[in-house]
Amino acid sequence: MEAPLLTRFTAFLHKEHLLRPGDSWLLAVSGGLDSVVLAHLCVLAGIEGPLVHCNFQLRGAESDRDEAFVRALAERYGRAFQVARFDTAAYAASHKVSIQVAARELRYTWFRQLLGAAPAASGAGIAAAPTTAAPSTAAPSTAAPPAAAAPAPRLTAIATAHHLDDNIETMLMNLFKGTGASGLRGMLPFQEQIVRPLLFATREELETYAAAEGLQHVEDSSNASDKYTRNFFRHKVIPLIEERYPDVRQNLAANLTRFRDLEDLYRQAVTRHVEDLLEPHGRGEWRIAVAKLEKARPLETLLFELLKPFGFSPAQAGEALALLHTTSGHFVASATHRVIRDRRFLIICAPAGQGVSQVAIEEGQTQVAFTEGVITIAMEAAPAAAAAPPAAAASLAAAGPPAAGPPAGRAHAPRASEPLALLDAARVTFPLLLRRWKAGDYFYPLGMAKKKKLARFFIDNKLSLADKEKVWVLESGGRILWVVGHRIDDRFKVTAGTTHALRLEWTQP
Amino acid sequence: MEAPLLTRFTAFLHKEHLLRPGDSWLLAVSGGLDSVVLAHLCVLAGIEGPLVHCNFQLRGAESDRDEAFVRALAERYGRAFQVARFDTAAYAASHKVSIQVAARELRYTWFRQLLGAAPAASGAGIAAAPTTAAPSTAAPSTAAPPAAAAPAPRLTAIATAHHLDDNIETMLMNLFKGTGASGLRGMLPFQEQIVRPLLFATREELETYAAAEGLQHVEDSSNASDKYTRNFFRHKVIPLIEERYPDVRQNLAANLTRFRDLEDLYRQAVTRHVEDLLEPHGRGEWRIAVAKLEKARPLETLLFELLKPFGFSPAQAGEALALLHTTSGHFVASATHRVIRDRRFLIICAPAGQGVSQVAIEEGQTQVAFTEGVITIAMEAAPAAAAAPPAAAASLAAAGPPAAGPPAGRAHAPRASEPLALLDAARVTFPLLLRRWKAGDYFYPLGMAKKKKLARFFIDNKLSLADKEKVWVLESGGRILWVVGHRIDDRFKVTAGTTHALRLEWTQP
Repeated sequence: MEAPLLTRFTAFLHKEHLLRPGDSWLLAVSGGLDSVVLAHLCVLAGIEGPLVHCNFQLRGAESDRDEAFVRALAERYGRAFQVARFDTAAYAASHKVSIQVAARELRYTWFRQLLGAAPAASGAGIAAAPTTAAPSTAAPSTAAPPAAAAPAPRLTAIATAHHLDDNIETMLMNLFKGTGASGLRGMLPFQEQIVRPLLFATREELETYAAAEGLQHVEDSSNASDKYTRNFFRHKVIPLIEERYPDVRQNLAANLTRFRDLEDLYRQAVTRHVEDLLEPHGRGEWRIAVAKLEKARPLETLLFELLKPFGFSPAQAGEALALLHTTSGHFVASATHRVIRDRRFLIICAPAGQGVSQVAIEEGQTQVAFTEGVITIAMEAAPAAAAAPPAAAASLAAAGPPAAGPPAGRAHAPRASEPLALLDAARVTFPLLLRRWKAGDYFYPLGMAKKKKLARFFIDNKLSLADKEKVWVLESGGRILWVVGHRIDDRFKVTAGTTHALRLEWTQP
Repeated sequence: MEAPLLTRFTAFLHKEHLLRPGDSWLLAVSGGLDSVVLAHLCVLAGIEGPLVHCNFQLRGAESDRDEAFVRALAERYGRAFQVARFDTAAYAASHKVSIQVAARELRYTWFRQLLGAAPAASGAGIAAAPTTAAPSTAAPSTAAPPAAAAPAPRLTAIATAHHLDDNIETMLMNLFKGTGASGLRGMLPFQEQIVRPLLFATREELETYAAAEGLQHVEDSSNASDKYTRNFFRHKVIPLIEERYPDVRQNLAANLTRFRDLEDLYRQAVTRHVEDLLEPHGRGEWRIAVAKLEKARPLETLLFELLKPFGFSPAQAGEALALLHTTSGHFVASATHRVIRDRRFLIICAPAGQGVSQVAIEEGQTQVAFTEGVITIAMEAAPAAAAAPPAAAASLAAAGPPAAGPPAGRAHAPRASEPLALLDAARVTFPLLLRRWKAGDYFYPLGMAKKKKLARFFIDNKLSLADKEKVWVLESGGRILWVVGHRIDDRFKVTAGTTHALRLEWTQP
């Protein structure tokens, strides 16, 4: 017999490294069955965090009824409650997007604002979204079991109620739209700042649980963003396929597990080829030996993976493949780079006389090239050595200004001295932007509680004019998370509460 | 504008290394539209080979009408014609399988008999299947362009008319039944003894071509084996999905190309891990260091790939994973091996006191372990150095008996001296059987035109009793293709006509 849902829930959290002691989550609750079960399980498991609700104001009184329902649920559980009321229709009109896309954008932008505004401690200082109602903090806990000597909880992620059937539908959507290794494995339990702790459970299991626990729920409106498509799979595609393949749900669920490993091994092989084939060759230039490339298999996919970090699309990579059968001097251009056929090499470089000044980095991308070198990107689960215990981190953040001058214990570094950056992945939102620094830029240097202008930071660190011209920064959601090669931002540092670290390593040309 | 179908057809043959000068194919023609187009294109491209037709006798007069149609087509094209009439219903009843499975088994068994009975030259010596009608050789060619100084054509494969839509359907079937990397990429253009030269074209393109060329066809009955399922996808599933994803056919076709590369890279990564983790440790024993294994990612899939060559199923590999958390002495058994938890190792060996005497090798399997070592299996496209030009091979086959004694130029090898075997993949049918040799075994030693008993071969090669006890043979369709470590069979050797070689390498423990 299957173990109770709560047991499987906590086992899943453990297996996927989703939660550390002291973590708390924003619990995204629409009021629909899935999110009501999510909230119930989180409360029973003692996971702290406010209930947050989006009122898209698309269904009049019904939308307000849902909001009131979730507010009441938060009160019953003794949780803080946050709601944002959006003029979704106006947003869709002004941004020229569909209602579905508008709802999705509004929802995740607000969630990330909530997370971003809660840097170390919980609750306090929630930023108001354009049309957010005032946060209503509710009565003390009635249902949550007491946490053992709880430290101040840290908001580390948004928890959403996506379940196994959702993930099967996502995989099928990707498949039918055309996909590769990463689309096949669907949503991951941890991705950017989102945790999906119900990804192990089927819709039916959640329904059974809700019935057994007597949980009330309302019509789910927050899923408006993709409800139409999901219902198409739920009510039409899957039942049709079940006529001939009765076990199709279980089979697709088993596929998802295999496809996740499949992508992992695919990435391993690609990384190995890229390391073997892509040779840095002085400032802002890379070379691929044609003779070596022609022996590599599978050639087409590998050339695409080699060129992707330089901004080449699959179609452009296809054109670059044709360069193998042309003479020296032919080239293919992306927005930021050219790949030029030379006698024995494909040479990758920025177009002559035109310095590239910014590059976007997508989630899952493992390398990015820019004029100052290559940054290798990797995700690591739960690093063993966290930077500081949470209490220390909190007190440090509140300790006040060392202000000007590098912090004690740090040598004056005239040039790039930190090729490696470890960041708390839960705080990082993709796509990242890698760009040249500019006047007016500021960040919170690691170890400081106050922001500092980059221009000032460079003076304090005695950078020469030439050095300064070479400085790039890595941005996430408009905030600098790393002054590449110099210092990470304190708000993104790895702490004892970090479940996944983003590891960035800069190799100079 | 798309190039004419014939141009794309020959380009596809070239790109996929499907054909060498002098090759001929058995052209499997049901009389349906797809196979009529296949025959037409092969004739125009000057590809030699008889038309072969299966009469499953399932639809009375209609079945006979189809047979007559294909016979007339062969005459018009000046091709030989072969037909087999099967009592499909009786076969299904006596073998307790469905009509679909019966038709498939009868069809491919007969095709392989036809291929196997035509070792070097074409046409002559076609073996009669149980109910085969006599081969009817037809009038000289009228439509085929003259082949330039054609050598005697060699039958290298069966050509079937599977097209892109078939392959999309196959991929979806695999997906819904549950699959891994190899199921996702569907059928390959070359697999075992089958070539699929229409895999690049859509059903619609074939229909357009047939209409433009004024090609007649009949109802397709040879596809009875999977027609019901294919029609389910063709008429129900795909049209439903097209309601929301109008480009789904093109998207799935592009997926197939990507998934083929995905599998390739997956295999590369798996092979690397297996080579790193699996240590031979004396006769019939392998070890996997637990500390090393625990660091490998993704653990579950890798452990399955490690154990698969030893006969472990995915479920048994899952049980073996649990051995990592048990104490010494616990074990999991497959049909042929045990994996035993030792303090620092997982030890893989044959059960005590019970010598394993045979192991099946599935297509796509890259390694097989047996008591005498490990055989690594790889497919190589069009090896540069073929053993002999076709004329020489043919004359050698007809040259008569060197009979007893090793051929000139071959040293007396008292022990295994040939760890490497290169075979013509087109002649090899999976699954292979690796087994101990037994009294009565015979084969055609490389370079000899006559068969020889293994017992005699061992005497001639001065094997000791102890040596003989260690000899294993590799079988394909009941015929020995390699006396492992000693000699390959002449019928399976690589010739100038070989498009793909099966490379087998034996590593002794």
